[in-house]
Amino acid sequence: MIKINTDIAIIGAGPCGLFAVFEAGLLKMHCHLIDYLPTAGGQLTEIYPNKPIYDIPGLPEILAKDLVSNLIKQIEPFHPKFTLGERAESVSQSSDGRFEIKTRSSIIECSVIAIAGGLGCFEPRKPELASLEFYEDNGVDYIIKDPEKYRNRKVVIAGGGDSALDWAIHLSSICETLTLIHRRSEFRGAPESVSKLEELHAAGKIKVILNAEVMALKGEPTLKSVDVQQENITNNIETDYFIPLFGLSPKLGPIADWGLNITKNAVDVNPMDYSTNIPGIFAIGDINNYPGKLKLILCGFHEATIMMQSAYKIIHKGKKPSFKYTTVTGISELS
Amino acid sequence: MIKINTDIAIIGAGPCGLFAVFEAGLLKMHCHLIDYLPTAGGQLTEIYPNKPIYDIPGLPEILAKDLVSNLIKQIEPFHPKFTLGERAESVSQSSDGRFEIKTRSSIIECSVIAIAGGLGCFEPRKPELASLEFYEDNGVDYIIKDPEKYRNRKVVIAGGGDSALDWAIHLSSICETLTLIHRRSEFRGAPESVSKLEELHAAGKIKVILNAEVMALKGEPTLKSVDVQQENITNNIETDYFIPLFGLSPKLGPIADWGLNITKNAVDVNPMDYSTNIPGIFAIGDINNYPGKLKLILCGFHEATIMMQSAYKIIHKGKKPSFKYTTVTGISELS
Repeated sequence: MIKINTDIAIIGAGPCGLFAVFEAGLLKMHCHLIDYLPTAGGQLTEIYPNKPIYDIPGLPEILAKDLVSNLIKQIEPFHPKFTLGERAESVSQSSDGRFEIKTRSSIIECSVIAIAGGLGCFEPRKPELASLEFYEDNGVDYIIKDPEKYRNRKVVIAGGGDSALDWAIHLSSICETLTLIHRRSEFRGAPESVSKLEELHAAGKIKVILNAEVMALKGEPTLKSVDVQQENITNNIETDYFIPLFGLSPKLGPIADWGLNITKNAVDVNPMDYSTNIPGIFAIGDINNYPGKLKLILCGFHEATIMMQSAYKIIHKGKKPSFKYTTVTGISELS
Repeated sequence: MIKINTDIAIIGAGPCGLFAVFEAGLLKMHCHLIDYLPTAGGQLTEIYPNKPIYDIPGLPEILAKDLVSNLIKQIEPFHPKFTLGERAESVSQSSDGRFEIKTRSSIIECSVIAIAGGLGCFEPRKPELASLEFYEDNGVDYIIKDPEKYRNRKVVIAGGGDSALDWAIHLSSICETLTLIHRRSEFRGAPESVSKLEELHAAGKIKVILNAEVMALKGEPTLKSVDVQQENITNNIETDYFIPLFGLSPKLGPIADWGLNITKNAVDVNPMDYSTNIPGIFAIGDINNYPGKLKLILCGFHEATIMMQSAYKIIHKGKKPSFKYTTVTGISELS
């Protein structure tokens, strides 16, 4: 296990978690971010990177991915550290009040925890298929981490949204054969992607099967083929990989078992400083709940700012931070 | 008097007041802004237009004036109306609950008032001189509204900050004579401005008198000259205008007499929705006060957002606004 020491562990590297690093940094506190997703940005990176956002004050229109880049640039002087692709599995507290968060690879020791988990951990929506679990990591993948894995292999992708279309298009130039299966006759993805798909289909680079579903997985010890039912006919298609891309579904994840007060999948907080019922643990952004709560990125930014005032008092044994304007003082790097 | 009808009157056209128009507009509510300053932007425009701001989330560094331009662009679809250069002098409420705000030229009728007055009305700091009031508008100006007024006239400016330097440099190309009087030997303004001033002084375009003060104003019925004391010598200098530029000082202004609960020059609010003790009147941004308040632009943006939810309920007789994301719906113009 990797041992990490920090002031504040931030669970969730979405916009709110990222900006929390800035406000902590102004008060000279170090942060370590943990996110289940493989890259920073949360929903903005994973769900709608190319959609414009209009309601960030001072940014009349910005693509979600550009807002994330801006936030990452903004926190650079404070050198945040990241544990990505791993969940905060468990938390414990020692007698001196320090917390220990365990992820798959690391133990993160900290004085304050900021839960900025958005809608929770995003888990892939899975098809209902017998022996699905048996084939996980043996031919069935839900997330494409490294496209090279599929070079010169046979791949079947299922789905009709942007993710399925984009990956089918991308992988078609790498794979030996690429088959895209969709249970409807129309795709939900962007019109440009649909046109591109039709082009590749016409050129024989992608096989497209509409109004169809994968009904069974076959092979031993790894996946060798899938049964595909189209109308009343079932065909067996040889493949090395089956990748269902049915979207991601948010789940609160392990923090549901940490003893926090939770209402409707959100963590109850004190609206004065967004503290939870466990002293030293705060919840900010979409994951928290208080009277009048609005699930807006802007509100999460504000919550992160206010929260850090209380975090400072915990770390500095009751001392209040002195208040300075960046316009007057500038930004000084954290060592 | 001009009669104006609107949903929400916003007192103060600084960043918080401007962004309030956006959040109101998303909920299809119209706004009218009132500001004592002649242009929108509040302190950002008036006090530090060319200073960088670092703590607006998603904007790692932005000049104050550019943040104001961005906000003005962001609220364009909602066509806010402005009454600038005038104060909200008095407020009254009719039996149907509508408010009437009086300014010098207008009566603004509205259902909700948002006080976003920042640090209050900025009033010029005045020198202590006998008969100063007599010369106001008769040769003494505190704010330069139209430089053309001084073309081919004799002008004395007093002050050592950016405003005094910038105006002295600018007016020197227009006036018949320009004299800059400063009570110290060093200027506080930007080094580039000081160099430029020295250049113009060497070229005979500006007369600079250091370690000096204007001690008396003379002339009848308008200003004809000023007495300037340097060390122990007093000289009389002929002039048409005397412009002391000693900075602006914030004052709460007439709203102090509206019956609002006020603590230390700030309006007490309920942190749930930033409502004041008078139903229908809210206070947002630097002018409000609640436990844990931070005087940050970002916090004012959040307060404006939350406040508009309650404003909607007042205007729509208790109905809650439906919640939509701009990323999903886009921005629709208000007619």
